[in-house]
Amino acid sequence: MTRLTLNPDRLFPADGRTRDIARALYAGIKDLPIISPHGHTDPSWFAYDEPFADPAQLLIVPDHYVFRMLYSQGVKLETLGVPTEDGMPTATDGRAIWRVFAEHYHLFRGTPSRLWLDWVFAECFGLDERLEPGTADYYYEMIDAALKTPAFRPRALFERFGIEAIATTESPLDPLDHHRAIRASGWKGRVMTAYRPDPVMDPEAAGFLENIARFGETAGEDLSTFAGYLRAHQFHRARFREAGATSTDHGHPSAFTADLPRGEAEALYQTVRQGRATAAEAELFRGQMLTEMARMSIEDGMVMQLHPGAYRSHNPSLLARFGRDKGADIPLPSEFVRNLKPLLDAHGNDPKLTLILFTLDEDTYSRELAPLAGHYPALRLGPPWWFHDSPEGMRRFRQRATETAGFYNTVGFNDDTRAFLSIPARHDVARRMDCTFLAQLVAEHRLEEDEAHEVARALTYDLVKAAYKL
Amino acid sequence: MTRLTLNPDRLFPADGRTRDIARALYAGIKDLPIISPHGHTDPSWFAYDEPFADPAQLLIVPDHYVFRMLYSQGVKLETLGVPTEDGMPTATDGRAIWRVFAEHYHLFRGTPSRLWLDWVFAECFGLDERLEPGTADYYYEMIDAALKTPAFRPRALFERFGIEAIATTESPLDPLDHHRAIRASGWKGRVMTAYRPDPVMDPEAAGFLENIARFGETAGEDLSTFAGYLRAHQFHRARFREAGATSTDHGHPSAFTADLPRGEAEALYQTVRQGRATAAEAELFRGQMLTEMARMSIEDGMVMQLHPGAYRSHNPSLLARFGRDKGADIPLPSEFVRNLKPLLDAHGNDPKLTLILFTLDEDTYSRELAPLAGHYPALRLGPPWWFHDSPEGMRRFRQRATETAGFYNTVGFNDDTRAFLSIPARHDVARRMDCTFLAQLVAEHRLEEDEAHEVARALTYDLVKAAYKL
Amino acid sequence: MTRLTLNPDRLFPADGRTRDIARALYAGIKDLPIISPHGHTDPSWFAYDEPFADPAQLLIVPDHYVFRMLYSQGVKLETLGVPTEDGMPTATDGRAIWRVFAEHYHLFRGTPSRLWLDWVFAECFGLDERLEPGTADYYYEMIDAALKTPAFRPRALFERFGIEAIATTESPLDPLDHHRAIRASGWKGRVMTAYRPDPVMDPEAAGFLENIARFGETAGEDLSTFAGYLRAHQFHRARFREAGATSTDHGHPSAFTADLPRGEAEALYQTVRQGRATAAEAELFRGQMLTEMARMSIEDGMVMQLHPGAYRSHNPSLLARFGRDKGADIPLPSEFVRNLKPLLDAHGNDPKLTLILFTLDEDTYSRELAPLAGHYPALRLGPPWWFHDSPEGMRRFRQRATETAGFYNTVGFNDDTRAFLSIPARHDVARRMDCTFLAQLVAEHRLEEDEAHEVARALTYDLVKAAYKL
Repeated sequence: MTRLTLNPDRLFPADGRTRDIARALYAGIKDLPIISPHGHTDPSWFAYDEPFADPAQLLIVPDHYVFRMLYSQGVKLETLGVPTEDGMPTATDGRAIWRVFAEHYHLFRGTPSRLWLDWVFAECFGLDERLEPGTADYYYEMIDAALKTPAFRPRALFERFGIEAIATTESPLDPLDHHRAIRASGWKGRVMTAYRPDPVMDPEAAGFLENIARFGETAGEDLSTFAGYLRAHQFHRARFREAGATSTDHGHPSAFTADLPRGEAEALYQTVRQGRATAAEAELFRGQMLTEMARMSIEDGMVMQLHPGAYRSHNPSLLARFGRDKGADIPLPSEFVRNLKPLLDAHGNDPKLTLILFTLDEDTYSRELAPLAGHYPALRLGPPWWFHDSPEGMRRFRQRATETAGFYNTVGFNDDTRAFLSIPARHDVARRMDCTFLAQLVAEHRLEEDEAHEVARALTYDLVKAAYKL
Repeated sequence: MTRLTLNPDRLFPADGRTRDIARALYAGIKDLPIISPHGHTDPSWFAYDEPFADPAQLLIVPDHYVFRMLYSQGVKLETLGVPTEDGMPTATDGRAIWRVFAEHYHLFRGTPSRLWLDWVFAECFGLDERLEPGTADYYYEMIDAALKTPAFRPRALFERFGIEAIATTESPLDPLDHHRAIRASGWKGRVMTAYRPDPVMDPEAAGFLENIARFGETAGEDLSTFAGYLRAHQFHRARFREAGATSTDHGHPSAFTADLPRGEAEALYQTVRQGRATAAEAELFRGQMLTEMARMSIEDGMVMQLHPGAYRSHNPSLLARFGRDKGADIPLPSEFVRNLKPLLDAHGNDPKLTLILFTLDEDTYSRELAPLAGHYPALRLGPPWWFHDSPEGMRRFRQRATETAGFYNTVGFNDDTRAFLSIPARHDVARRMDCTFLAQLVAEHRLEEDEAHEVARALTYDLVKAAYKL
Repeated sequence: MTRLTLNPDRLFPADGRTRDIARALYAGIKDLPIISPHGHTDPSWFAYDEPFADPAQLLIVPDHYVFRMLYSQGVKLETLGVPTEDGMPTATDGRAIWRVFAEHYHLFRGTPSRLWLDWVFAECFGLDERLEPGTADYYYEMIDAALKTPAFRPRALFERFGIEAIATTESPLDPLDHHRAIRASGWKGRVMTAYRPDPVMDPEAAGFLENIARFGETAGEDLSTFAGYLRAHQFHRARFREAGATSTDHGHPSAFTADLPRGEAEALYQTVRQGRATAAEAELFRGQMLTEMARMSIEDGMVMQLHPGAYRSHNPSLLARFGRDKGADIPLPSEFVRNLKPLLDAHGNDPKLTLILFTLDEDTYSRELAPLAGHYPALRLGPPWWFHDSPEGMRRFRQRATETAGFYNTVGFNDDTRAFLSIPARHDVARRMDCTFLAQLVAEHRLEEDEAHEVARALTYDLVKAAYKL
C-alpha cells in the first residue's frame, strides 16, 4: 500500500520563484466561497437532504467521466452497474463494482478525474492510502460508513464546502417543486435553477411535440401562433426567475443564429409545430430562437449561456442499450464568426445583454472567441468546458484568450457537474491553475503582483457574481 | 499611487539558468537598429515633422486595440472621441477621454497593449507612476507637455528609436506626395512605401469602379482590356519602386488563388470591369490577380505579402456610425494548401519570388504553413500577425513553425502598426520573446549557445533585410 | 571548428528539480529494447546485410526531411543528387553533395532533423566536431570509412541499436521474398512486414487496375465479384501474417469510412473494377474498404493503422521530374467524428478490434481523437506523426491528449522512418520527451513518482507490445 497525499503545492509551477508567487496568490483566494453558477446537481438532494447511496452509486455509476475511461479499455458498462434503458439488470453489488474500478484506477493517471477523485478520497473521506486493488475494500467500507453519517448529507456537505450559491439546470417542463421545497424548508443554502429550454426549442429533441404541448398548457398559452409560443417562454422564464434563476442555458449542436422577418419566423414555427421541419429547418428554428432568447434577456435581465458543438450520443448501440450521457458525446469543429452574426447584428452592441460563450473546439479561443468578446459589449467567455475543464485545458484557455479578450471579458469558473462531492476539488483546480497562470505573468514581469492578487480574486469571485448577476 | 517599472528581465523565463541565457542573447541584439518592413504609419508625419496632437488624440482615439477593449466593457466610442462617419460630434476633451481610459486601464492586464503602453509611458515620457484614475491628470499633463517639445516631433522620435528603415502602405491611387516630400526635404530617415492594390484589385472594395478608372488614368493606360489593366499595375508598381517600395501587400478575405487561361481571365476581367461580378467571381478575380502579382514580382523583384483571413467590419451598426477599422474585424478559419496551389503550381518553385504568408488562424502554423514554407523556395512565413502579435502568440508561432520550417524560412518581425510611439516596444517584445524561445532551446540542449546568438541576430535583423530586399 | 556534444540532459526541462525527476525516469527506461512497430526500412538490408553506399547516398539523397529544407532555400534537388524520374543524371559525387549539405546545415537549427543527425554523427560515427563547411570533408571521410567496416552492416547496426523487433511496410503485390530470405538466413533479428493495401484499395492509385489484376492472380481468386476481391485480401493478409505481420496500414486522403449494404458495395466495386469510379466513388470505395478491413481484423487479429490527411505530391513540376515522396506532401485539415462513424457504428464497441489513429492535424488531438479514444474500446491513439514527430510535437500531443484519453489509450512511439541510422535517435527523443512530460506532472504533484516510472515503461515498451500484439 502507498500513501495518498494531496501536496499543498499541487498544480503550482515547479520553478521555485514562480511557485512562491502562485502560493501567495492562492493564499489570498483559496478560502473564498464557492459560487457555482452552472451545473447539474439534483435539487432534490438539497430539498430532502437524504443520505447518498453506496460508494459505487455515488461515485462511479452516474459519472460518465469515470466509466467511459474503463469502457474504452474493454470493461463493460454492465459490469459497472450502469442501468440499461429497458431495465435489464446490470451489476448491483456496489463492492464488486468498486473493485473493478480500483483495478483500473491507473487509467486515470494524468487526467483531471484522478485529481478530483483523490481530493474526494483524501479531503472528504479522510482516506490516506492510494486506491488500488489491495485497498478497494478498505475504500468501499470507509466511504460507505461515512455516507451513513449526518456529516455526509447533502446540506451538511453544501455548508462544509463553503458554497455561497449553486445553480441547477431545469427544463421549462419542470415544475420546480424541489426548488420550492428548498425554499419552504427554511434552510438557508442558496440553490437556484437555470432555464434550459432545449426540449421545447429544438425540433429534433426527443418528444418535442409533446413537450411544446405541455409547455403551452402549463403557461396557459395558445401555441397556435409564434407569438403565443414566445409568450409561453416569457411565462416560464418569469416562473424560473421566481425560483431564483438568473440565467438561461442553450445546448445547441452549433452556434448558428438567425434573425428572420416576423412573417418568415411565423411560417417556420408553423412547420416546426406540425412536426414537419427538415434538419435545416430545425437548425434555422434553433438559431431563430437564440435571437429571441437574447431579446427576452435584454427585457428580463437573464444571462444567456450558449454551449454548442457536441455530437451527442455518437455510439448508437450504446445509446439504444444505456441511453444518453454515457460518455459518447464527441466534440465537433465549431464556428462562431458567421454563426453568431445575426444575433450580434441585432443585440451585440447592447450592454444589457450578457451572452456567455462556451466551446469544445479550443482552436476558436484565439481565432474567434477572444476577438469577438474583446469587441462586443454583449459577449463574455465562459471557462474551459467539459473535456477542457482540466489543468492543461485551463492553461490553454488563459494562454490563448487573455491577450485579446483580457481577464475581464471572462466569467470565472463553472464546475458544470453532477458529481457533487467533486465540486470543491474542481473549483480548487481552477483556482490553482489561475494562480499558476498569473504567477507566470508576474515572474516574467508581465503583470505586477498587486494586480495579480486583484485579478485572482476577480476570476474566483467578483467576475462570477457580476456576470451571472448573483 | 504605485510605481511604474519596466523590469529589465521582462518576458524572460522565470527559471534562473534559462533567464541568464535569455539575457545574454538579448544583450547581443537589443541595440540593433529597427527595421520595420510592414506597417501603417503616416508618411506625412515624416514629411512635415509637425507635433502630434494631444495625448488622447495620439494614444487612444486612433488605436483600435485600445478602444475596442473599453467598448467590449460597455464604454461608448463616442465617449472616447472616436469620430463618426457623418461628422456628428463626439467627445473632444482630451483630458476627459484620458480619464475614462485611466479608469479602465485594468482591462489591459495580461494583454500586449499593456506592455506597449507602459513602455511608451515609462520610456518615451519618463512617467514613473502607474496609470490609474488617481494619476490620470498627471499623465495627461506630462504627455501633453512633452508632445509640445521638439524631442517629440516625428523625425526626432524616428532617430531616437533607432529606426533604420520603415515602410508605410499606400494604395495605387496615392500620389505618394508625402514620400516625395520626405526625399525632397533632405532628411536622411529611410521611409519607403509598399504597394497595396486591394482598392483596385478587389471588385468588392468600396468605390472599386471609380478606383480603377483613376488607376488607369494615372497610369495612362486604356483599361478596356485585361492587358491594359495589367500594364497599369506595372506602371504603378514601377512608380512605387521609385518611391522606395520593395514589397506589395494583399489583404484578401482568403488565400484563394487562381491561374486561369488568358481568355477566361480576360472574360472575367470584363465582368468585373462592368461591375457585374458575383461574390464568387470577385473571389476568382482576386485569386487570379494574386497569381498575376506573383508573375510581376518575379519580373520586378518586389516581395509579396499575403494577409488573408479577416472578416472585416463584422459589426454593421458600428460600421455605419464609425466606419472601418474600429476593432470589429474578426479572424476566420483559413486554408492555404488548396487555395495557394494554382499560384504555387505556376511560380512556387521560382526562388526569384518571395511570397510572405501571414495568418490569423494559428492552427495553420504547424498544419499548413510550416510544411509549405519548408518545401517551396518561393514561400516564407511572416511573423505572428495582429491578434497574435503578443508574447504568447509569438511563443506559439515559434513552437509550432520552427520544427518544420526552421528559423530561416521566417522573416523577422513586423510591427504592422499606426501607433508610432509603440514601435520600439513592439520590436522589443519580439526580440525578448525570440531570446526566450532560443534560451529554452539552449537550456534544454537543443541548440548550442553560439548558434542561438547567430539565430537571434538573424531573426532581428539579417532575415528581415534579406526577405524584404532592404 | 566547434565541438559536437550530445548533452546527457538534452530535452530535459531546465528547472533543476524537474530535470532531476526526468533524469531518474529516463534512467529507468533508456536501455529498454527498441520496438519499432511501424516504419519504412528496406527488408533487403536485413536479408542480405550488404554495406550501405556512401555518406550522401545514405544520409541525404533518400531523406526528404533533409533535402526539402535545402530545397526550400533554393538549393536544387539535382545538386543534391536526388534521382529524376526519367533517369536524367543529377549530381553523383557524394563528396560534393555532402559539401552543399554542410554549407546549409544551419538551416536545421531548432528542427528534429538536427537532433537526429547530430546523434548519428556523434553516437554512430564518433564524430566530435560540429558539421559546418570547414568539417565537411572530415565528416565525409570518417563516415565513408566507417560504412566500409563490418560494424556498419545492417545486421550489426540492428543489434547494436538494441532493436527487439522492427516492422517494414509492404504492398500486397510484394512477394515478401526479402522477409523470407531473412528467416531462411538463420539470423535472429525480428523483422516483420505490415499489410499496406493502398495500391489495391485506392482506385486513384497509380496503376490500380493492373494492381488488382496481379492481386487477384497471386491470390488465385476471381476478382469479378466483390466477394472474390475480399477473399483475395484474406489470402494476402494470411500470407503477410505468415511473414510476421501483426498489423495493416492505411494511408488514405481522409478518415472517411462507409458501411454500405452488400448490394451497393458490390455495385460500387464493379464501377471501381472497370476503372470508371469518379473521385467521390473512389473515396466511397476507400471508406467501404476500411470497414471491410476492420471486419477482417476482428477475424484475423491484425491491428489496423489509419494515417489520413496528407495532400500527396502537392508540387506537380517536382512530381513530374523527381516522383513521389520528395518533401511536397502537405497536411490537410482532418475530421474524424463524422468520418469514422460508419466503421465505429459497426465495430467500434468490439474490443477484438484495435484501430490506431494518426493525424497531421493537431487540432484534432483534444477535440476529436482523445474523446473518441477515451470512449470506444476499439480505438487507440498513435504517436505524433511525421511533421509532429518532434520535441514540441510530442509535447503538444501529451498535453492535449492525456487529460481525456489517458496514457493507456496510446500505443508508444513509431519511428516511421526509412533513415535506419536515425532510429535510435528518434526513439531516444520520444523517451526523453515522455520523461520530460511525466517529470512536469510529478513536479507539479499531478502524478506520484512511482506511478510515473510505471507509465514511462508502459509508453516505451509495454503499451507498444500490447497494442501491436508483439
